[in-house]
Amino acid sequence: MSTILKGIAASSGIAIGKAYRLVEPDLSFSKTAISNADDEISRFQKAINSAKADLEIIREKALADLGEDKAAIFDAHLLVLSDPELLSSIEEKINTDMTNAETALKETTDMFVSMFEQLDNEYMKERAADIKDVSKRVLAHLLGVKIPNPGLIAEEVVIIAEDLTPSDTAQLNKQFVKGFTTDIGGRTSHSAIMARSMEIPAVVGTKSASSSIENGDIVIVDGLHGEVHINPTPEIIKKYEDDLRNLELQKAEWALLKDEATKTRDGKHVELAANIGSPQDVDNVLANGGEGVGLYRTEFLYMERSQLPTEDEQFEAYKSVLEKMKGKPVVVRTLDIGGDKQLPYLNLPSEMNPFLGFRAIRLCLEEQEMFRTQLRALLRASAFGNLKIMFPMIATIDEFRAAKALLEEEKATLLENGVEVADGIEIGIMVEIPSTAVLADQFAKEVDFFSIGTNDLIQYTMAADRMNERVSYLYQPYNPAILRLVKMVIDAAHKEGKWAGMCGEMAGDEIAIPILLGLGLNEFSMSASSILKARSLIKKLDQNEMKQLAEDALRLQTVNEVMELIHNKIM
Amino acid sequence: MSTILKGIAASSGIAIGKAYRLVEPDLSFSKTAISNADDEISRFQKAINSAKADLEIIREKALADLGEDKAAIFDAHLLVLSDPELLSSIEEKINTDMTNAETALKETTDMFVSMFEQLDNEYMKERAADIKDVSKRVLAHLLGVKIPNPGLIAEEVVIIAEDLTPSDTAQLNKQFVKGFTTDIGGRTSHSAIMARSMEIPAVVGTKSASSSIENGDIVIVDGLHGEVHINPTPEIIKKYEDDLRNLELQKAEWALLKDEATKTRDGKHVELAANIGSPQDVDNVLANGGEGVGLYRTEFLYMERSQLPTEDEQFEAYKSVLEKMKGKPVVVRTLDIGGDKQLPYLNLPSEMNPFLGFRAIRLCLEEQEMFRTQLRALLRASAFGNLKIMFPMIATIDEFRAAKALLEEEKATLLENGVEVADGIEIGIMVEIPSTAVLADQFAKEVDFFSIGTNDLIQYTMAADRMNERVSYLYQPYNPAILRLVKMVIDAAHKEGKWAGMCGEMAGDEIAIPILLGLGLNEFSMSASSILKARSLIKKLDQNEMKQLAEDALRLQTVNEVMELIHNKIM
Repeated sequence: MSTILKGIAASSGIAIGKAYRLVEPDLSFSKTAISNADDEISRFQKAINSAKADLEIIREKALADLGEDKAAIFDAHLLVLSDPELLSSIEEKINTDMTNAETALKETTDMFVSMFEQLDNEYMKERAADIKDVSKRVLAHLLGVKIPNPGLIAEEVVIIAEDLTPSDTAQLNKQFVKGFTTDIGGRTSHSAIMARSMEIPAVVGTKSASSSIENGDIVIVDGLHGEVHINPTPEIIKKYEDDLRNLELQKAEWALLKDEATKTRDGKHVELAANIGSPQDVDNVLANGGEGVGLYRTEFLYMERSQLPTEDEQFEAYKSVLEKMKGKPVVVRTLDIGGDKQLPYLNLPSEMNPFLGFRAIRLCLEEQEMFRTQLRALLRASAFGNLKIMFPMIATIDEFRAAKALLEEEKATLLENGVEVADGIEIGIMVEIPSTAVLADQFAKEVDFFSIGTNDLIQYTMAADRMNERVSYLYQPYNPAILRLVKMVIDAAHKEGKWAGMCGEMAGDEIAIPILLGLGLNEFSMSASSILKARSLIKKLDQNEMKQLAEDALRLQTVNEVMELIHNKIM
Repeated sequence: MSTILKGIAASSGIAIGKAYRLVEPDLSFSKTAISNADDEISRFQKAINSAKADLEIIREKALADLGEDKAAIFDAHLLVLSDPELLSSIEEKINTDMTNAETALKETTDMFVSMFEQLDNEYMKERAADIKDVSKRVLAHLLGVKIPNPGLIAEEVVIIAEDLTPSDTAQLNKQFVKGFTTDIGGRTSHSAIMARSMEIPAVVGTKSASSSIENGDIVIVDGLHGEVHINPTPEIIKKYEDDLRNLELQKAEWALLKDEATKTRDGKHVELAANIGSPQDVDNVLANGGEGVGLYRTEFLYMERSQLPTEDEQFEAYKSVLEKMKGKPVVVRTLDIGGDKQLPYLNLPSEMNPFLGFRAIRLCLEEQEMFRTQLRALLRASAFGNLKIMFPMIATIDEFRAAKALLEEEKATLLENGVEVADGIEIGIMVEIPSTAVLADQFAKEVDFFSIGTNDLIQYTMAADRMNERVSYLYQPYNPAILRLVKMVIDAAHKEGKWAGMCGEMAGDEIAIPILLGLGLNEFSMSASSILKARSLIKKLDQNEMKQLAEDALRLQTVNEVMELIHNKIM
């Protein structure tokens, strides 16, 4: 039966494919008594062998795709499955307790895990994690339940999940994963941002994708309208296939703009830059005609690891981005961790309201050694391109001064030691906290540039968690209050002869771009995949007309009035 | 040994007394095998009898102080202790498992609790809660651990706690509880607000009070300097006793201002009103010379209950406040639940960032029946005094219009049915979300008044959870960004001929009052206990000088510069 789910359009484009459920399997079971221990032990051994076979395949795949480092994880898992002490403990438990293999497995591995976790020893804690993982895999085989593994996907699929963590998303292979849909999340949740950056169509926040879609269902993800079609009729499939072809044609047309400068109809130039998360993303930026990197999110360097990256590792990453960008500007944001992005090895206490908590620059000003290491890596890399440094989550001028002072200290030490550092590196801030927007005229006297981070600025200004679906109606980029704050920031920058950019989602948004042009924004930083479309739009707009449009918008009362204005004037 | 703990001065004044620890007792124990079941059963029965004796006393006390209703809870607990099925199950378990009474008690009651909780039946769920409570009490007797009970305090004490919930604080008897100190919390945590409203000196956020102070230690709570002295020397006690006497003298002086109007030195009148949580608080408002109620927090009507209050219950409460205030203005805030204030019976899903979540007006616009009931009760009460209605957490003009429309609908229906409703009830909003402050000029065209809620406005504007100690340095009422937002709101109100008040903590703050006067704030609503002090301060200030002071403050860059300015000009 054909069904349609409504969700939030998170990454545009259309995907058609077979459903692949990436859903935590149900591994619940009851403790039962058994009558024949030998039969149960042989059932257990079969499960062990199947789990081993799985892991061999996954290990081979990881070795081929991801290298020795990642494959080593599965070596460790295989070792657990061959640990005679563990296996015999479980078999003995089956024998003496006359209980089912599931219970014996769970109770024994739980005991080992809790023993290892209590030790104050990093190595033993990792062993505990390995045992947990392996125990789940064996349990799944005992229960006849399938554990999904995105790394093993070898046909074109659409991923169905409750939610995707950044690490889930990173594992998706673009060759086979044509799109995804999730139960939760919003336009600015990490999975959505990753999807846009990977150019995978996605619909999030459907509430029920994971409960309505079975493995193998034919699914269409319509990332433009936020719709998911489950087992659609041939007519619907035909319509979407036509749409897909038209999309390809339009992309080909946009591609012609790749090497053009971005200018309005009346010749005003603005910079279209890209947001990136790693050096690999640069190829995509250049392929899409990006004029710079407006936001390099350095936190991905710190994630999916068990300890902080070294200064040299960071230096290599920054240098690589700067070199690839060949003198085009690269704005690097210093570590923005905390909130919804955690680093387990930092052991930060959990917070009641992490978005209003100890994160980003707040954390870096306390964890000075970690911060100074990043600053040194950046300063050393500055010799290899056009680097600008930007501090996230600045709420007060005191914080900016403190962060800048650390940077100056590190720079002085490097110069003393004869290390080359670029001259006149621009030092700016993210404007993503309302206090900073309101006081932008004072900040503009001290910073070299502003980059408005609209994702956070909107959530704080409206006091609405952008990940929380119950208040998602308050995530209003076009609310006149937001537009006024954006204007304050741009005006303040210009008054002091500085530039203002934007690196939030809003910068790549078709409805927002005309107003932002009118407000005088200098730099628009977005997903690389949005650049050509934005360039094509800006070419058609007149700077003076947009100025009038922006003035009109600032005097309106509600977000609907603003949208209506834009639709009437532009669309 | 004399020790000093530093904390946050949460409620001024000085308390000297014996420590009473209100700390969750450690009820952990090990499962051990026993050799003599009869001995163990008799140990168990003794614990049962001691728990019964406790409960009899508590029940008597509750009956005398709080009435039949509250005493009934303890009747239910006593019933559990006489339940033959429960008792014999436990004794049987001791006999058959040959295990200690603690284990038999815990395992048996856990089983009953989980059985009852699984039933979809409100009555059985309450029974489960009763069994849990009683089981803890018996366990404490078995372990020889004391369970604190604030209701039984009958001598002058200082309460020591990790944290105090609103319900803990409500149970404190002012006659005996001279002050309190907690490990966690900040100036605007609920326990701090309650302490100020009850005029109990308090120091919160000491981090270690509960681990450093023993029952019976002599403790001084210095609520002015945020210090807690443990077993101080006779000299220190003497000094504080002198301070206490001086405080009494100053209070006597302020008391002379009780019936004066609040005027600046040059004759400008402002209104000093009080924040209240229940009709009982009104006596204190009048005793302190309050010119009105600037914030009646109605959520306390909804708390500590198992279901919503009826329309009539609410009507009686509102009517009682209005009548007692005899025509003086009473601003009632509609239900502000969610965030850190939960109602278990509403079954709201837990949120990742509750302060940025589904709360206050957001919830009320969805739970319309609940909201309409409150609006009807308010409208009916309006005939008995000078009522003004205010909606909390308004972020957009659309929300205000939606809330006002419901109010108008209920009013029309009441009038149709011949119910008396006051004419021209003023309808205003809390300004506690940055978007609303920034768009205040547009809001001012539609609302009758603004009341600036600084506690939330500051936390959203600075993006810092006011309960989170790690970012408490960002709770900056005097940050120029906050002052600018306050100015926008006041100016916007005046431009449309409306009035602007403030009901956050800042309104009663000695450093803020001069600036707020200068910005033209019309109404200051604070803890009743702060009113006379504020009146005494305002009498000494000149409105025009304060105007200049405010203008100077708005041009500063940091909170320290603002504080320095005020200290130089005023203090």
